[in-house]
Amino acid sequence: MDSLRERTHLPFGSGKQMLIGLHLGNGYGSQPGAWRMPGVDPESYTSFDVRVKQAQAAERGKFQFIFLPDGPGAVITDIESESPAFNLDVMMTLAAVARETQYIGLVATGSTTFNEPFNLARQFKALDVMSHGRAGWNAITSSGDDVAANYGRKIPSSEDRYGRAHEVVQLIQALWGSWGKDAWVHNQQTGQFAKKEQILPISLQGKYVGSRGPLYIPPSEQGQPIIFHAGGSPNAHELAGRFANAVIDAAFTIEDARAQRNAFREAAKRYGRNPDEIKYIPGLMTTIAKDRRAALDRRIQLTGHSFRQRAGYLQQMLGIPIDAARLDEPISKELLQDARPSRYDPRAPHALKIAKEGWSLRDILAHGVIDYHPVIVGPGIEAADHMQAWFEAGAADGFWISPDVNSDGIDAFVDEVVPILQERGLFHKEYEGKTLRQHLGAPDQYGIDPRVSNK
Amino acid sequence: MDSLRERTHLPFGSGKQMLIGLHLGNGYGSQPGAWRMPGVDPESYTSFDVRVKQAQAAERGKFQFIFLPDGPGAVITDIESESPAFNLDVMMTLAAVARETQYIGLVATGSTTFNEPFNLARQFKALDVMSHGRAGWNAITSSGDDVAANYGRKIPSSEDRYGRAHEVVQLIQALWGSWGKDAWVHNQQTGQFAKKEQILPISLQGKYVGSRGPLYIPPSEQGQPIIFHAGGSPNAHELAGRFANAVIDAAFTIEDARAQRNAFREAAKRYGRNPDEIKYIPGLMTTIAKDRRAALDRRIQLTGHSFRQRAGYLQQMLGIPIDAARLDEPISKELLQDARPSRYDPRAPHALKIAKEGWSLRDILAHGVIDYHPVIVGPGIEAADHMQAWFEAGAADGFWISPDVNSDGIDAFVDEVVPILQERGLFHKEYEGKTLRQHLGAPDQYGIDPRVSNK
Ligand SMILES: Cc1cc2nc3c(=O)[nH]c(=O)nc-3n(C[C@H](O)[C@H](O)[C@H](O)COP(=O)(O)O)c2cc1C
Ligand SMILES: Cc1cc2nc3c(=O)[nH]c(=O)nc-3n(C[C@H](O)[C@H](O)[C@H](O)COP(=O)(O)O)c2cc1C
Repeated sequence: MDSLRERTHLPFGSGKQMLIGLHLGNGYGSQPGAWRMPGVDPESYTSFDVRVKQAQAAERGKFQFIFLPDGPGAVITDIESESPAFNLDVMMTLAAVARETQYIGLVATGSTTFNEPFNLARQFKALDVMSHGRAGWNAITSSGDDVAANYGRKIPSSEDRYGRAHEVVQLIQALWGSWGKDAWVHNQQTGQFAKKEQILPISLQGKYVGSRGPLYIPPSEQGQPIIFHAGGSPNAHELAGRFANAVIDAAFTIEDARAQRNAFREAAKRYGRNPDEIKYIPGLMTTIAKDRRAALDRRIQLTGHSFRQRAGYLQQMLGIPIDAARLDEPISKELLQDARPSRYDPRAPHALKIAKEGWSLRDILAHGVIDYHPVIVGPGIEAADHMQAWFEAGAADGFWISPDVNSDGIDAFVDEVVPILQERGLFHKEYEGKTLRQHLGAPDQYGIDPRVSNK
Repeated sequence: MDSLRERTHLPFGSGKQMLIGLHLGNGYGSQPGAWRMPGVDPESYTSFDVRVKQAQAAERGKFQFIFLPDGPGAVITDIESESPAFNLDVMMTLAAVARETQYIGLVATGSTTFNEPFNLARQFKALDVMSHGRAGWNAITSSGDDVAANYGRKIPSSEDRYGRAHEVVQLIQALWGSWGKDAWVHNQQTGQFAKKEQILPISLQGKYVGSRGPLYIPPSEQGQPIIFHAGGSPNAHELAGRFANAVIDAAFTIEDARAQRNAFREAAKRYGRNPDEIKYIPGLMTTIAKDRRAALDRRIQLTGHSFRQRAGYLQQMLGIPIDAARLDEPISKELLQDARPSRYDPRAPHALKIAKEGWSLRDILAHGVIDYHPVIVGPGIEAADHMQAWFEAGAADGFWISPDVNSDGIDAFVDEVVPILQERGLFHKEYEGKTLRQHLGAPDQYGIDPRVSNK
């Protein structure tokens, strides 16, 4: 890691630009009704063509990476009406995308809990080689009982999950580094295929996992894949602080995001790293249209059928009685004066703000006030403003974007939001290089990290 | 499996045609010196472009499948001068090939010993979907201590390896079948995404592995991947007899091959199957050139540097003193009369036959008398004759071909051997369908095999 510390870092705000990633999941998009929207291929869920096309759209927008969540749990209970959320298989999807894109970083989630580390190591390194240095591994611990059941197990304790995760990441990075930078000679004249003394066993054995190695894969154009993490618990801070160059998160307010970002930066410092080595990337969901009204109508078309049910949730969020049958009417000023936004739901203050603007109950819900991330429902400039505000407040180093419907929502973001950010100098106009490490400003990594070999 | 039993099978020999598969490994070919040959890309080992091109060459020759061995063991001890034998990762390779071919079957080895079954299940099913029904899984048990060491383990006993293998295959087939044939509706008008009552948990728990399921992947164009096996022990007969539609093997004589083929057919019968459901596929290595002399010279160029060492081995094989320094001379008639071909090496009689033809020691070795499979070093017709003889003797249902050097050796086979076999009516001229099951004459499989659900 010495080389990482030696980099000169631009001070915050001085010309630094934000990162943008695309959330790639079931192929339809992040909103439940997406699969039924006009123009959507109903077979997107099993279509690798569709994934490739969507990644290409993000690459047209100069996104630094695509991000594929994963968590092979229960086939969702509402399978009668909704698609599962994830890719059929994240690695097979990225293999297809790698062959048909040129620049965009390829980041997939891989569980440290339910994988043989050697298998994860070779798949991500193979992806890194086949994409010419664009692979990233989102190293998470699995926490769902339904996921564990698919592996015939119970979810281990948090201590065991993170204990294993530390060992697995350490071991995999060691395997990735087991060929030195110049180990692969392949000189047809001299007949030397590789330098044996630069290909070393790792011989790591921990409490949870072990491996002798070496891996049999030479370095890629970026040396080896880069580590991402997703989550926000103290355990997540530690794991990411030690290993990750980027963190995928969910945060609803600038304050929350800034606190999370700082927690990760502090953790990085505890491991002797420069905090700028870890990029904090909260999510943003988007419904982009020519104006707010058109965007709200699109959202109503998508998820309007669930609004009666959601009104019940809004009632809890705001602490006032709401009549779910009166979707066309605003919530009365009198009622809103009595509102006590839930302290347990970070989305509540935003929901109250929207309600006070006087929108009908239907339009309040169409603003996406109850969703997994902050939601922009409006013209591109509203997304750009949100991103700028968070970025300049030190709440984010970038964003991962979940369009409502991928088939046209990625293009809408690329055409309506990206140019504004570029014009404001907040987002790059061209890829600075061809590897994911270059996109993130992280140095190449060859050989074995001293943190790994100091076992 | 009822539907399998219902098929009408052509009696042996009556117009039946052979299967051909291509061995796809490190990208160079099966002979040690391959990576240094003129016209070979020295970076083939890490090149996915190269693998795709080679698979396309096999598809041009109407091969029914490509076969990718795997066994992540020691980086070979002679890495200074030779490439590792396998793909960087078999699934990532097949994902690339799937996207850039149309017909050829895609068969990869996946260890039942060192994989989480749920992960194997979803990767092979994802491959099956992305290739539109062309995936096959070579379900083997890992037996190398060096492989086990990479997983931080010891190799389990044969009983435990095969005990686990039976459970893993059963469980994976159940996961593959967990969506009924028509379960995936995705009707945008009615809003029905899937039929919940046709997507069922498998809830299997054995001594070694378990899973609740269901898998979240709908059927492919062939329903689900097909099972291959590789090996020849009694345990292998049982596992393959129960589950496999094809067996990859190594056999040096017609007699051995016929005995193996019958052992697999008998095992299939013990499981109540029609023995024609299991195709027996021994290997064949090829050095094809315009005549025997040119082929021998090519072989000398490739591996001639190792002939002194190999002469020592030939001496043991034939039980006579051989002077490794006199490569240019034939072995004398007197010596050959005393030869006692080793009873422990099935290649010995063939080696003696070649020696008696009067070739120089160098040319004897250049015939490939010491290799992993029978070797053809000569014009295409010699390979065709070999294949016809074995096929018509009931020793093989097909062959997996290991060209000496892939860059031109696949094309040589396609241009020089395939047309002869086609002319003799022994090999198809066109793909009969688009799925691997169609290529092998196996019916589609949907839902859960009764052998699996009768737990
Ligand atoms: C934005 C975000 C994305 C996540 N993505 C995944 C994922 O793709 N797969 C997964 O299994 N878990 C994912 N997680 C879950 C975390 O890995 C972690 O298991 C969860 O936050 C529980 O926290 P803890 O285990 O640290 O207590 C994600 C979490 C967050 C906040
Ligand atoms: C032709 C052939 C190909 C094989 N391919 C593989 C392979 O790709 N990967 C692997 O781990 N083992 C492979 N094996 C090994 C077998 O799976 C098995 O482990 C070995 O034959 C030991 O036999 P037993 O375990 O049945 O006693 C292969 C064996 C044969 C004969």
